[in-house]
Amino acid sequence: MLNTAVEFAKANGERFVEELKDLLRIPSISTLPERAGDVRRAAEFVADGLRQAGMENVRIIETSTPERVGHPLVYADWFHAAPAADGKAKPTVLCYGHYDVQPPDPLDEWKSPPFEPEVRDGNIYARGAVDDKGQMWMHVKALESALANGGQLPVNIRVIVEGEEEVGGEGIAAFVRDHGDRLKADAALVSDTEMFAPELPTLCVGLRGMIYTELEARGAMVDLHSGMYGGAAPNPFVALAQVIAQIKRTDGRIAIPGFYDDIEEPSKAELEAWRSLPFDEEHYRKTEVGSTELTGEMMFSVLERTWSRPTMDVHGMPGGFTGAGAKTVIPARATAKISFRLVPNMKPEKAFAQYKAFVESMCPAGITLEARLIHHGEPIVVSTDNAYVRAASAAMKEVFGKETVFVRGGGSIPIVGDFVRELGIPTVMMGFGLPDDNLHAPNEKFHLANFHRGIESILRFFELVGAGE
Amino acid sequence: MLNTAVEFAKANGERFVEELKDLLRIPSISTLPERAGDVRRAAEFVADGLRQAGMENVRIIETSTPERVGHPLVYADWFHAAPAADGKAKPTVLCYGHYDVQPPDPLDEWKSPPFEPEVRDGNIYARGAVDDKGQMWMHVKALESALANGGQLPVNIRVIVEGEEEVGGEGIAAFVRDHGDRLKADAALVSDTEMFAPELPTLCVGLRGMIYTELEARGAMVDLHSGMYGGAAPNPFVALAQVIAQIKRTDGRIAIPGFYDDIEEPSKAELEAWRSLPFDEEHYRKTEVGSTELTGEMMFSVLERTWSRPTMDVHGMPGGFTGAGAKTVIPARATAKISFRLVPNMKPEKAFAQYKAFVESMCPAGITLEARLIHHGEPIVVSTDNAYVRAASAAMKEVFGKETVFVRGGGSIPIVGDFVRELGIPTVMMGFGLPDDNLHAPNEKFHLANFHRGIESILRFFELVGAGE
Repeated sequence: MLNTAVEFAKANGERFVEELKDLLRIPSISTLPERAGDVRRAAEFVADGLRQAGMENVRIIETSTPERVGHPLVYADWFHAAPAADGKAKPTVLCYGHYDVQPPDPLDEWKSPPFEPEVRDGNIYARGAVDDKGQMWMHVKALESALANGGQLPVNIRVIVEGEEEVGGEGIAAFVRDHGDRLKADAALVSDTEMFAPELPTLCVGLRGMIYTELEARGAMVDLHSGMYGGAAPNPFVALAQVIAQIKRTDGRIAIPGFYDDIEEPSKAELEAWRSLPFDEEHYRKTEVGSTELTGEMMFSVLERTWSRPTMDVHGMPGGFTGAGAKTVIPARATAKISFRLVPNMKPEKAFAQYKAFVESMCPAGITLEARLIHHGEPIVVSTDNAYVRAASAAMKEVFGKETVFVRGGGSIPIVGDFVRELGIPTVMMGFGLPDDNLHAPNEKFHLANFHRGIESILRFFELVGAGE
Repeated sequence: MLNTAVEFAKANGERFVEELKDLLRIPSISTLPERAGDVRRAAEFVADGLRQAGMENVRIIETSTPERVGHPLVYADWFHAAPAADGKAKPTVLCYGHYDVQPPDPLDEWKSPPFEPEVRDGNIYARGAVDDKGQMWMHVKALESALANGGQLPVNIRVIVEGEEEVGGEGIAAFVRDHGDRLKADAALVSDTEMFAPELPTLCVGLRGMIYTELEARGAMVDLHSGMYGGAAPNPFVALAQVIAQIKRTDGRIAIPGFYDDIEEPSKAELEAWRSLPFDEEHYRKTEVGSTELTGEMMFSVLERTWSRPTMDVHGMPGGFTGAGAKTVIPARATAKISFRLVPNMKPEKAFAQYKAFVESMCPAGITLEARLIHHGEPIVVSTDNAYVRAASAAMKEVFGKETVFVRGGGSIPIVGDFVRELGIPTVMMGFGLPDDNLHAPNEKFHLANFHRGIESILRFFELVGAGE
């Protein structure tokens, strides 16, 4: 059964990629209200794909409420796995992915347009190629390959695909909270992470959480001329600079009182394993970051700084004059988009409250500060001592011909925390991205060999889980 | 002759305003390359107005060079003033103004569109109404009123109107430097300042200079995902915040070494006169600035802080993600638009060198900083003990029925410094704006009564200068 499915996937690989291209052409940017129609088109595309794969009960689930406009979920299931020899029902795997994408700007840095997928050197380039349309499409195509020509799946399956992952996933979080029974499963499978190195099968067993905030500074009631008022009127950008400089010290440490108090450090064994990973800091600095130096808390390794230490970043500072040339304005208001990454045992609500109290305590003269929480996600860790993680590890080892390594991710997949908390199930994070896939950046890509190996790994994972191994 | 001219101005006042509206409809925003055509249209409009006024040798002078694209100057003259009884030629007055305007953003804060002038409650609202189209048009209309119906001017006149005042005035600076002989005059008249209070005739006898800079911080070579790289990759916004917070201390003092060294303090008499001006700090805070507090160097009065003390302001911080919602990017680069106002005896080149050395000395880890000088202007002071300033003072007193006061301006009119340095002539800064005219901000306006009184004041000024009083 497995071989038939794998062969079908191989024989149809080119068609799978052409279909992915069609999906990548839809600019389903969830953060831009004017793209809501495209986001919905992408949801319908995924629903059609699931129907074509042979999945059942395929439906679009609305997430809008009277309070907010949401993007839809796509749901499907298949519950016909033959029971085990002892009559016991096979486990249910909940496959999760997202079809929304990040904005593509800055547009002029793309070598080919972000929504006109192009294959170059064995990679497919487009916004969403790896995050997460390409990886989500592996799930759909694995299911299709198993069910093709009257085939069967060795496990029961539910699929839930969201369109708000890049904007905080509020809709799916509410759905999991309020309708957990409709997603009942034994484990979740998420392919939205990356491999530690090319050809190195990797499972992610921990993720940082986050709070994404806007800090708005208001000074004068209208924009003022800096010649006439400079020296007496408060400048909201200067105020934000003073506040930001006090949040993050030059040694990389966050100065918010109590911010580090609840952190659960990684175990000695985990730190040991990280040290044995093939990581070349100088190569990472040069080829991935490309800055003159790496920064942050120098008493921790780079992997710790990006996996198990909280951080603060500023993403943009809208307001004032940003065009070419000069405008001598003291803007009435300015905003900083500031996020914090959180690590296991930190609570987003508490971290936000600490941050808000801290910035308010140091509000510069003449300025009113408002800290707003835009979205948040909880940090999580998954135990490696778990049948599903073991099955995934064996499946990837089989396909890649190498021992699978366990890593953490620095980013956030808030839904993984919700699966733990609301559904009480572990999540297998089996991702096939590569470190240089330009996630959230211009020239995002997905290595096509990994797209195909991902499908095969998923099929083998289902097989091992179904066999109770 | 004066009375005939003043009567003509009164009889034609409504037409003058209608013509001004036509000029205000042209979005001659000099800082936006895509508006170059509109800037030229405004130049041609002014040239036509001067021709219609009866001025001679009207011409458009190009300022583009192989190195830069510039906006044109408009020139005109009239040299037929009857000599004095002793046969001595009458003095020549050089009238200066500018026809370019600031960008109108933020657009949504305008009550009527910035380039659709509207009269409400005796004020004309439009971008450029007071700065400087409305005030420059007073000059043109004063000339027309004097020359109408075969009339004569009591002085010789040159007119030079530029289209780059809002972007540093490089073109006119080069013209004054290279072709000073074509602007030979005895004094300059500039109407680009404001009255200290409504109904209070005011002459401005000092201006701050400025340097307008861009400070660019570069970190990673591409935009990075803050989840994956946050904690190790340098963040250019955080770096700029750290640098800005060190440039300007929370007590308003600029921390650049040597920055205050060369300052020439105002005289005791001048400070005394400022203290007697009708200035209500609390009213100023509430109605003009509208912030919870005024800021800056508290050991100096507000008038000193805005007239005779240098300042630093941040106008905008382009880069990264500035749209609605969330994008978790660590941008590869970010920029801060930073300007400094300079006071008499400070040198722009020296101030920029001090600033550049200072920011470079504290460049945060992993960041490359580049400070660029976008434009600059020298600070100036004009002696009040001067026949032209006395004539202007008397002219305004006559029209407004009140003693004229002497103030300084916090803004920069770089050309005034050029007139002193290159032409060796004093400038009379006779402005008719009001403190709440929203210069450089949404809902810019010009009080129409002042437009008409401005024309009459200029006519009386010419008369007094011509009479040698």
